[in-house]
Amino acid sequence: MSLEKAEIAIVMASKHDLRVMMQAAAILDRFGVQYHIEIISTHRSPDRMVEFSKTAQAKGFKVVIAGAGGAAHLPGMIAAYTPLPVIGVPIKTETSIDGLDAIYSMLQMPNGVPVATMALDNAPNAAIFALQILGCSHPSYLELVNAFKTKQKQDADRTSQMMQEQGYEKFAESLGISM
Amino acid sequence: MSLEKAEIAIVMASKHDLRVMMQAAAILDRFGVQYHIEIISTHRSPDRMVEFSKTAQAKGFKVVIAGAGGAAHLPGMIAAYTPLPVIGVPIKTETSIDGLDAIYSMLQMPNGVPVATMALDNAPNAAIFALQILGCSHPSYLELVNAFKTKQKQDADRTSQMMQEQGYEKFAESLGISM
Amino acid sequence: MSLEKAEIAIVMASKHDLRVMMQAAAILDRFGVQYHIEIISTHRSPDRMVEFSKTAQAKGFKVVIAGAGGAAHLPGMIAAYTPLPVIGVPIKTETSIDGLDAIYSMLQMPNGVPVATMALDNAPNAAIFALQILGCSHPSYLELVNAFKTKQKQDADRTSQMMQEQGYEKFAESLGISM
Amino acid sequence: MSLEKAEIAIVMASKHDLRVMMQAAAILDRFGVQYHIEIISTHRSPDRMVEFSKTAQAKGFKVVIAGAGGAAHLPGMIAAYTPLPVIGVPIKTETSIDGLDAIYSMLQMPNGVPVATMALDNAPNAAIFALQILGCSHPSYLELVNAFKTKQKQDADRTSQMMQEQGYEKFAESLGISM
Amino acid sequence: MSLEKAEIAIVMASKHDLRVMMQAAAILDRFGVQYHIEIISTHRSPDRMVEFSKTAQAKGFKVVIAGAGGAAHLPGMIAAYTPLPVIGVPIKTETSIDGLDAIYSMLQMPNGVPVATMALDNAPNAAIFALQILGCSHPSYLELVNAFKTKQKQDADRTSQMMQEQGYEKFAESLGISM
Amino acid sequence: MSLEKAEIAIVMASKHDLRVMMQAAAILDRFGVQYHIEIISTHRSPDRMVEFSKTAQAKGFKVVIAGAGGAAHLPGMIAAYTPLPVIGVPIKTETSIDGLDAIYSMLQMPNGVPVATMALDNAPNAAIFALQILGCSHPSYLELVNAFKTKQKQDADRTSQMMQEQGYEKFAESLGISM
Amino acid sequence: MSLEKAEIAIVMASKHDLRVMMQAAAILDRFGVQYHIEIISTHRSPDRMVEFSKTAQAKGFKVVIAGAGGAAHLPGMIAAYTPLPVIGVPIKTETSIDGLDAIYSMLQMPNGVPVATMALDNAPNAAIFALQILGCSHPSYLELVNAFKTKQKQDADRTSQMMQEQGYEKFAESLGISM
Amino acid sequence: MSLEKAEIAIVMASKHDLRVMMQAAAILDRFGVQYHIEIISTHRSPDRMVEFSKTAQAKGFKVVIAGAGGAAHLPGMIAAYTPLPVIGVPIKTETSIDGLDAIYSMLQMPNGVPVATMALDNAPNAAIFALQILGCSHPSYLELVNAFKTKQKQDADRTSQMMQEQGYEKFAESLGISM
Repeated sequence: MSLEKAEIAIVMASKHDLRVMMQAAAILDRFGVQYHIEIISTHRSPDRMVEFSKTAQAKGFKVVIAGAGGAAHLPGMIAAYTPLPVIGVPIKTETSIDGLDAIYSMLQMPNGVPVATMALDNAPNAAIFALQILGCSHPSYLELVNAFKTKQKQDADRTSQMMQEQGYEKFAESLGISM
Repeated sequence: MSLEKAEIAIVMASKHDLRVMMQAAAILDRFGVQYHIEIISTHRSPDRMVEFSKTAQAKGFKVVIAGAGGAAHLPGMIAAYTPLPVIGVPIKTETSIDGLDAIYSMLQMPNGVPVATMALDNAPNAAIFALQILGCSHPSYLELVNAFKTKQKQDADRTSQMMQEQGYEKFAESLGISM
Repeated sequence: MSLEKAEIAIVMASKHDLRVMMQAAAILDRFGVQYHIEIISTHRSPDRMVEFSKTAQAKGFKVVIAGAGGAAHLPGMIAAYTPLPVIGVPIKTETSIDGLDAIYSMLQMPNGVPVATMALDNAPNAAIFALQILGCSHPSYLELVNAFKTKQKQDADRTSQMMQEQGYEKFAESLGISM
Repeated sequence: MSLEKAEIAIVMASKHDLRVMMQAAAILDRFGVQYHIEIISTHRSPDRMVEFSKTAQAKGFKVVIAGAGGAAHLPGMIAAYTPLPVIGVPIKTETSIDGLDAIYSMLQMPNGVPVATMALDNAPNAAIFALQILGCSHPSYLELVNAFKTKQKQDADRTSQMMQEQGYEKFAESLGISM
Repeated sequence: MSLEKAEIAIVMASKHDLRVMMQAAAILDRFGVQYHIEIISTHRSPDRMVEFSKTAQAKGFKVVIAGAGGAAHLPGMIAAYTPLPVIGVPIKTETSIDGLDAIYSMLQMPNGVPVATMALDNAPNAAIFALQILGCSHPSYLELVNAFKTKQKQDADRTSQMMQEQGYEKFAESLGISM
Repeated sequence: MSLEKAEIAIVMASKHDLRVMMQAAAILDRFGVQYHIEIISTHRSPDRMVEFSKTAQAKGFKVVIAGAGGAAHLPGMIAAYTPLPVIGVPIKTETSIDGLDAIYSMLQMPNGVPVATMALDNAPNAAIFALQILGCSHPSYLELVNAFKTKQKQDADRTSQMMQEQGYEKFAESLGISM
Repeated sequence: MSLEKAEIAIVMASKHDLRVMMQAAAILDRFGVQYHIEIISTHRSPDRMVEFSKTAQAKGFKVVIAGAGGAAHLPGMIAAYTPLPVIGVPIKTETSIDGLDAIYSMLQMPNGVPVATMALDNAPNAAIFALQILGCSHPSYLELVNAFKTKQKQDADRTSQMMQEQGYEKFAESLGISM
Repeated sequence: MSLEKAEIAIVMASKHDLRVMMQAAAILDRFGVQYHIEIISTHRSPDRMVEFSKTAQAKGFKVVIAGAGGAAHLPGMIAAYTPLPVIGVPIKTETSIDGLDAIYSMLQMPNGVPVATMALDNAPNAAIFALQILGCSHPSYLELVNAFKTKQKQDADRTSQMMQEQGYEKFAESLGISM
């Protein structure tokens, strides 16, 4: 992975967020898209957060994905410093209030400093959305997204057809589902 | 406004959403950025929603801003059809459940079909975020965002200084605030 | 199961919803009522969702049961296309916000496009309600519902009587319940 | 209004619910569909509620619409007594908990006794849904629903076109909307 | 247990509520207080619920404890029929909305028909409160409550003292608690 | 009002609660039932709260009604000191969290120290419930409650009949209700 | 106001927060306690926020009160930079989610970086709490707090006595309260 | 541990709170700071709670940390009696309403009686905040806090660096994390 060419930065507030955020990395790996991934503690190492945010554009990043739980200030603070688009992934932690704390902290940003908030724990969607953003300058990325959507459609349709053919009971059995 | 050149589409589910969504248009007007604006009823005119979504990319749009209240399916359904990035603006209506219905309907999209959710009723941030996305291909847009951020900083600092100089009581009076 | 005669369609957004939705099928099986069951991904295979919705009436369906979790647009979008009554089953998934996301997305439909929302994960009630709807044209279905209600009453009364006879402690023991 | 022919019963728990529930009646009036409308206090006149519920089918009703706020037991208790489909309209009152009390009381009915819950305060949708149910036996009612949907589509499209022609600013002005 | 003398009736909507409600019975057993305990399904056997409610006073009951989950109409419907005080125990079930459905359904009763709502799953408190009510006519019951409070105080103080003496670490160890 | 004979004490945490709590007094006035009413600030005058609680039984009170908003500790603290039954009225204040703060603070009392929680702002029900409690020793109070229930039933039935006779539109007009 | 001597800093994220935060200043004014008050926009002027936070201790501040609404990152970010105690005042704004967004953003801070969160909009309590903190080094401040508590007690008791003397109805009238 | 010198008191409402609250003690142990730790049942041993609160200042305590779950009155009642700063730790218990009951009961204290509320179950932060308070009189405590912050920063940075060096996949593996 060469940092020089990565246009997507994936950051997270703590190593405990890695379980969720590595799913964004995995999506980009699958697509063969370069990215930078880093743990940046907003409240424990705030200067590094500021440094990262201030230099992100100069380093060539085009979009930042930031995951955090609880008070979840990371994406909002990065957005305060950089003109780059920031995508927030709210993470449900053991002591969170059903994940609503992270959702509200990211979502309810003030005028002029948006954070594009994704579904709870949904780092894969953050990766997809980053590709959609980069699609503005790299049309091939939109083709990647289209290919991904086509693949999802085919999988969905095949799944649907399998159930039609097997009947729901056998299909459920094949999935290990029982009532 | 020439549709051919607009890269941003602002759509909303109902004319009742215009009060909020016209604030996105106003931001883009201020920046001199072209956009297309349209009312598309997801549930009353769904074919037009599908038509819009399927042709959005071909029409030259690069990003879609979609505002809706209540069940608020508009941004999610557009995202189902287009590879373009979709920004959702949840709108609090009179009979909404504190706006949480619209927030959850946009935010909790499934894997592979993200909607970038903004704060409740925050259409201006959707406009800013659209510019940040387009900044990938138009560096001048990121400069616009930077200029906007600089202006916001100056306004914030001037406001701060004014209160420092006047004392909080006179300053509050000048704002028409009383305890 | 002959599709030609099925008046009830049970659809769900993902194979992960089968665990819940197959309980609706099981109820109809028990009553010997024909139904069609299908997985239709709203956001991954939206054209198939539109196709299904537009042709549902012509295919002879009289009522649609649609289950989904998270953003849960499936029942609402079907209702946008068909004049048939649509029953929604909100499903609690692992990353849902306590299931409230699915409940609000189904419940809060706009004027003119109702979705009849059932309790969280309560697919059996969707099946019962479908029979109650079909009872309008098939009085025998209301008799089925009445028979079901009578059976429920008898079971409830027998359970009650058993506890009266055994005392609550022995009865609890027989249920494997301890404090 | 001849009670003999009415297949739809609209009931509500209190005269304070009339503001909302009369909107269901107005929809049916518009369609020229007969209905019975009545105030039945669940907790103050429970015997009348039981009497109504037990005789509803024999009186020729095919569907019951029941509106209530707060603890909102009316639709659920009617559903306990009759095999007819019951549509619930949760109503937000002054001392309700944001209307969530009525929503949860109707929605979370136990197995075998469904209440088809509509959006908060959305009595019009209850009327539409009643027509969709009756459409099973009266195909002309589904045509009414289709006509209503077509009218809604035309209105939505005309509104959309008007904004396209006038520009959003003039259109907003014509609606009395300002930022 | 002689029904003739029981002044407290403990009822519950389903056998699944027994796990919680038997804790009320256990408290009364400990105090040697007679009670009647019964499963009465509000929605499956509503006539029995009405019969119970109408005859409760004549049977000599002075107070009714009613536990239920989900839509949880049992205590409210009993209160509609009897002038006796009704204590409600909201129960958190597997498919409940965090137990809030049961809490709101009991708590938000209309004017004139109160249900005294206890904490979630707190059947023991319902038993204690029943004794406090009966204390009006049986001063000895208030003495029982006082004795219970004294016992609780002594236990609390002894626990406190044990931790003081052992130090918190050893005390935690003795409780099987670790950080 | 003679304090010696009052068996019901109505207390509230602040004069701001009087708007709600005086409705409990008004109900008792209507029934000609003696009561004591007092403002006791839990957090500002805690010793008076303790004094009141410790002497309540000796003063001849049989039941305490306590109203409070926000953190709302008043009913729970009184219940800690007295064996008498305590009825809590949660009050929605301007800075409360939709009244949920007061509800949860009263409802979620620990084992052994119940507070009988009423609906939000529903002081009248607290008065009714107090009479139901006192009915244990004063059968005439249960007759009062029964008379009240009968009156409520008659009013409900008369209201229902009026709407039947006038039609809902004229009746709505007479209530000043319009859609 | 001499900055050199002020040990309390009151900061807020926006001039819109002044309505609430000036109530903290007013409390300190009443006690004759010096303070510094300043508007610092977390997201618009983040460098000034960092500068303030890094120099707060050196400037002689001993405690920081920070008010904010929505995403409300101000108190948490200050706490990341300074070892001083930070008191957070969550503010309910027009587009906030009932104020829960600000509460959760302040409250749910990670290990090692606490923010002492006050009640919604309760800036006066932040001022009182700042005095309680400073009481560690200035015993006279605890005397101020004690005097304040005594005054509150006297006011509460006098109010209570007034109602006792006037009767609740006249007292309510004197407050302009009617049912 | 010598009680005479302890300036911090850690109290909790029940032994069940020890699992959480002992984490505050552990932090203070690590820093070599004296403290007093005690179980005080608010509702079962209220006189001891009052006694503790009234004598806390005289005993030399400078700050009180109070943890509780459910109705969670302990910190608020202590704050009613003492001018000392009180830090509240809301605890999520098995039967709590997602911990929101404890949060709201502590947070929403009335004017003049603040409780400094920490994150759910976050006793360590209460210990840190107590040190920050005591830092007013013991500058060395602020140095402890600074040292702790520095340590946290170093740990965060080292963790970050480790992931940079190992790559996220190996690092995740070393943490036992898999997707």
